[in-house]
Amino acid sequence: MRKWGTEKTRHRHMYIEKINKENDIKNIDPENYPELASEIREFLIEKISRNGGHLGSNLGVVELTMALHLSLTLPEDKIIFDVGHQSYTHKILTGRRDDFDMLRKYGGMSGFPKRRESDCDPFETGHSSTSVSAGLGLVKARDLAGEHYNVVSVIGDGALTGGMAYEALNNASKLKTNFIIILNDNDMSISENVGGISNYLQTIRTAEGYQNFKLDLEKFLLKNMPFRGEKVVDSLKRFKSSFKQLIVPGMFFEDMGITYLGPVNGHDVKAMCRLIEEAKRIRHCVLIHVLTKKGRGYDPAERHPARFHGTVPFEIETGLPKVKRTKADYTDIFSTVMIKLAARNDKVVAITAAMPDGVGLKRFRNIYPDRFFDVGIAEEHAVTFAAGLAAGGMRPVVAIYSSFLQRAYDQILHDVCIQNLPVIFAIDRAGIVGADGETHQGIFDISYLSSIPNMNILVPKNKWELSDMMKFALEISVPCAIRYPRGEAYDGLKDFRAPIEYGRAEVIYDEAGIALFALGSMVKTAEEVRSILKEKGYYCSLINARFAKPIDEEAVSVAASRHDLIVTMEENVASGGYGEKVLDFANRAGLETNILNISLPDEYIEHGKPDILKSELKLDAAGVADTILARIGMIKQFH
Amino acid sequence: MRKWGTEKTRHRHMYIEKINKENDIKNIDPENYPELASEIREFLIEKISRNGGHLGSNLGVVELTMALHLSLTLPEDKIIFDVGHQSYTHKILTGRRDDFDMLRKYGGMSGFPKRRESDCDPFETGHSSTSVSAGLGLVKARDLAGEHYNVVSVIGDGALTGGMAYEALNNASKLKTNFIIILNDNDMSISENVGGISNYLQTIRTAEGYQNFKLDLEKFLLKNMPFRGEKVVDSLKRFKSSFKQLIVPGMFFEDMGITYLGPVNGHDVKAMCRLIEEAKRIRHCVLIHVLTKKGRGYDPAERHPARFHGTVPFEIETGLPKVKRTKADYTDIFSTVMIKLAARNDKVVAITAAMPDGVGLKRFRNIYPDRFFDVGIAEEHAVTFAAGLAAGGMRPVVAIYSSFLQRAYDQILHDVCIQNLPVIFAIDRAGIVGADGETHQGIFDISYLSSIPNMNILVPKNKWELSDMMKFALEISVPCAIRYPRGEAYDGLKDFRAPIEYGRAEVIYDEAGIALFALGSMVKTAEEVRSILKEKGYYCSLINARFAKPIDEEAVSVAASRHDLIVTMEENVASGGYGEKVLDFANRAGLETNILNISLPDEYIEHGKPDILKSELKLDAAGVADTILARIGMIKQFH
Repeated sequence: MRKWGTEKTRHRHMYIEKINKENDIKNIDPENYPELASEIREFLIEKISRNGGHLGSNLGVVELTMALHLSLTLPEDKIIFDVGHQSYTHKILTGRRDDFDMLRKYGGMSGFPKRRESDCDPFETGHSSTSVSAGLGLVKARDLAGEHYNVVSVIGDGALTGGMAYEALNNASKLKTNFIIILNDNDMSISENVGGISNYLQTIRTAEGYQNFKLDLEKFLLKNMPFRGEKVVDSLKRFKSSFKQLIVPGMFFEDMGITYLGPVNGHDVKAMCRLIEEAKRIRHCVLIHVLTKKGRGYDPAERHPARFHGTVPFEIETGLPKVKRTKADYTDIFSTVMIKLAARNDKVVAITAAMPDGVGLKRFRNIYPDRFFDVGIAEEHAVTFAAGLAAGGMRPVVAIYSSFLQRAYDQILHDVCIQNLPVIFAIDRAGIVGADGETHQGIFDISYLSSIPNMNILVPKNKWELSDMMKFALEISVPCAIRYPRGEAYDGLKDFRAPIEYGRAEVIYDEAGIALFALGSMVKTAEEVRSILKEKGYYCSLINARFAKPIDEEAVSVAASRHDLIVTMEENVASGGYGEKVLDFANRAGLETNILNISLPDEYIEHGKPDILKSELKLDAAGVADTILARIGMIKQFH
Repeated sequence: MRKWGTEKTRHRHMYIEKINKENDIKNIDPENYPELASEIREFLIEKISRNGGHLGSNLGVVELTMALHLSLTLPEDKIIFDVGHQSYTHKILTGRRDDFDMLRKYGGMSGFPKRRESDCDPFETGHSSTSVSAGLGLVKARDLAGEHYNVVSVIGDGALTGGMAYEALNNASKLKTNFIIILNDNDMSISENVGGISNYLQTIRTAEGYQNFKLDLEKFLLKNMPFRGEKVVDSLKRFKSSFKQLIVPGMFFEDMGITYLGPVNGHDVKAMCRLIEEAKRIRHCVLIHVLTKKGRGYDPAERHPARFHGTVPFEIETGLPKVKRTKADYTDIFSTVMIKLAARNDKVVAITAAMPDGVGLKRFRNIYPDRFFDVGIAEEHAVTFAAGLAAGGMRPVVAIYSSFLQRAYDQILHDVCIQNLPVIFAIDRAGIVGADGETHQGIFDISYLSSIPNMNILVPKNKWELSDMMKFALEISVPCAIRYPRGEAYDGLKDFRAPIEYGRAEVIYDEAGIALFALGSMVKTAEEVRSILKEKGYYCSLINARFAKPIDEEAVSVAASRHDLIVTMEENVASGGYGEKVLDFANRAGLETNILNISLPDEYIEHGKPDILKSELKLDAAGVADTILARIGMIKQFH
């Protein structure tokens, strides 16, 4: 295998260019599989180095995807990629090679499987651990319709820490027809794997399978003849402890009733094809354990798997980003604040669901390893675990992306908020996230959290306010969510730093005419809206809402008495959001005012640069100003 | 063990009366444990036969709870009961015996652990599979604080099918300090257990543990010497298949890194105490496998575990309900409709998460066993599995209680609605459910579903409309939720059965003055409100809203033009609910009208009879009428 970054010659793309639609790969001579794999890797590295995207996971599954396409017939057979960001080779092999120039760009190809792109994408993914459930659904649909296609779910060892995957395996074990699960085991979810299952898989990997059996058996028999009587527990303990030496690959899965095959080298196409053929003949659920290496074939990605999980455009030779970040993002700010808070208060502990890098807890982990918990891809457990910590007197901070926290809605409602436990939710990637698209937009959190009694929702306008809000949340000892967007932290309005007061907004500019109540990221937008409207002869007060729940009713009342129009602005869907709360209050209080709610539409938002998306959705300054002007035109007695 | 229903003599309660606070049980002579257990059972049967409540699970854990109280010191040590409805003996043993007369009644004792009731309830439960996560949180809090109390999570085999429990076990395996998990295995969750884990536990139960080891080993050695070469797969398969005969109790848990002790007879107090003492000495996570019998000691409950899971008041002698139901409830209607729909359309399949009885799918299961799926307590999997079925061309109906469906919020949003898959959600127990209290009220579903793009929400006013809406949902082939309340199905307004039209409300009475837009259960209430207001001289139109999403904007516009006040009525929290949608539309459309939203407050609602709760919350007819009259007083130009 040639390594990028150490050797510079280029292939002519002899083999990849022969593949223009699904099943074309079957015309490639098996001798040339390694060359094809190399070409695919070169192609991926080149495209992703220019556009950004998920690199490490895609480099890891090149041969696995080839083996699947060689062993199956698409689109009749169904492949479901768990999480889905590792489906680039699948896209190449199904005639979408030319679309890579527009990968993850607005109007271009998605970085995830999409039914609208190809009938070879039978089910869409994005969040982790869904593929076995969906695959089982397809299997049952197939059987009921009397059809005979193959269904294959490809799931990583990281996704296997998610409870949903286990629920699905538990059900799959009852099958009496074929269903193939590929366990793509790279000993690495997004950053690093955790927990018992991870250790278990590690044991399989290192035990060289069943071949140690004979040697160990002798020792085992010598030591472990069980005996009866009162010492059952001691006997059992010794018995099982030695028994573990007797590693049988996949017994964990076999115990659940799932046939286990493997482990197999995930970079050996022919070996995998043989195992898939074997698996297709089995009349129940079968799991093939495939060992792959994340970043395979590109040195920088092999060495820095977390950085190359999802990457910005980079220089191929060095692996370094093409554009260096100059400003801190909100994740950086959170990262720094957490360390300060932990230094001052030894009750502060931090929890991540498999993303210590992504949410900014790497430094915290290094400084406070005992107070840091990476629970794996297990958002549900993360939240109830935090509730337990809080019930035990700790002050847990749960840092999870907005769209992933959706998975813990019930745990927030049922385990944290009924007991009013002081858990702080640090919700990163809230609002439009951009290139990842529909599945990852963080545009529902204000809605799903607002409906929960006892919950409090804070939204900072700039980097200093995130810090102030974290401190404030720690002081008030009730459930608190602080949501902040992806990307650069706003560093304007530095001089506006009135102390945070519970449920109170902050007046930034006090004028007449229009009152802009802006939430978080929309404060910056509101400043620009103010300038645009000023040019048109309209004056705007600007109120930094700060609290999405509870809203500052007094500020709304005061504003209503002194303005002709109140405008709420939020980066969240309308239903259940901040604007509806303001409107509801105004209605209940009988305020005589006009209210315009600016928010996101009742639609999923596709991938693309946030600036483009906001412009399309009229959530940028120009769009908001237009909407306000249109509304002013409808108001009869606007002064 | 004496059996109720076969023998009529009564104890004088010699031993139970000696227990008036935690740890009092330690003064009972071990010889008298069986008598104490009998007295507790008599007490439970007597109280629950009068008030209703959870019987079977509580009769099953009498001795287990005694053993825990004997081995631990409360409140320092912490016991967390998963689900929590099996905590009655725990309540008796912690000084709450006298509160059983008010069990589950408004203002009385909860049927679940509550921190406000006792400092012996360290963490509140209600939904399934949370106890290991919460327990692990308490363990970490303990260790960080340098304390040394014991933490014990008691989880049923049913709850073990929930993915959260697995996520937590996966994390617990890393512990280097003590944490005790009691697996209360009665081979039965609420109705019947399903899946691989269930089969696995069954194997342990029937294998008589490790004692078969020796016999099987010989056969094993004769048959299974592994060999090398090309036939690896075949060899492995034979190897493992025989290996399974070699049952080692709890290897599944041991593979995860958790020490397994058991199985132990869950009705032998002393044996359990010995094992708990053993477990307390282990410096990591240890699971004790306890075998219990649901309904133990009361014949009818042993024979009909599903009926005595949660029961209405019953005659002790016969086990029959004291008051016979005369009218169908919504669950019955759903049950009947499903069978009709399935007969007409062979694509219709049904999914339940461990509650075929509760949601009314027992008959469906009997008639269409191949089209019925009980996935276990696994709401997340249930929904994505349904999405897979829909993607494969089926028409799945997922029947889950409103509060339990909270756990699948992300799956509805991410797996069903992004792909706009035609999954029908039959949401039973929507609205106030009564005696189960905070954790079980179904008062959030309109909010959490309304925020999801592509979702449609239908709410029937009476039993015929539930049937019509099910048929309609099947016709429109998009994601649909139909929510209906617990209890008797309304059989009024039989003559109002205009065909369901997409997004359209149904006008029942067309008058002037006030327009009542009532959703589902509130239509009946609105009829009563109308009568009350008529007596006061006010006339009301009554509009059956039918769709909570999308709302009927035209109906609102028309009503606004012809009434002085629009009143929305829903059995759901205000935030994100139907009322806010109507208000939002009216605001956007610039309607000149007064709007009053009647809904539930931003609070958790405790247990009690729904009638009492609704009256307290002013959601009954009198309360709604009062609120309307107060609002009318504020409107200047009411005609």
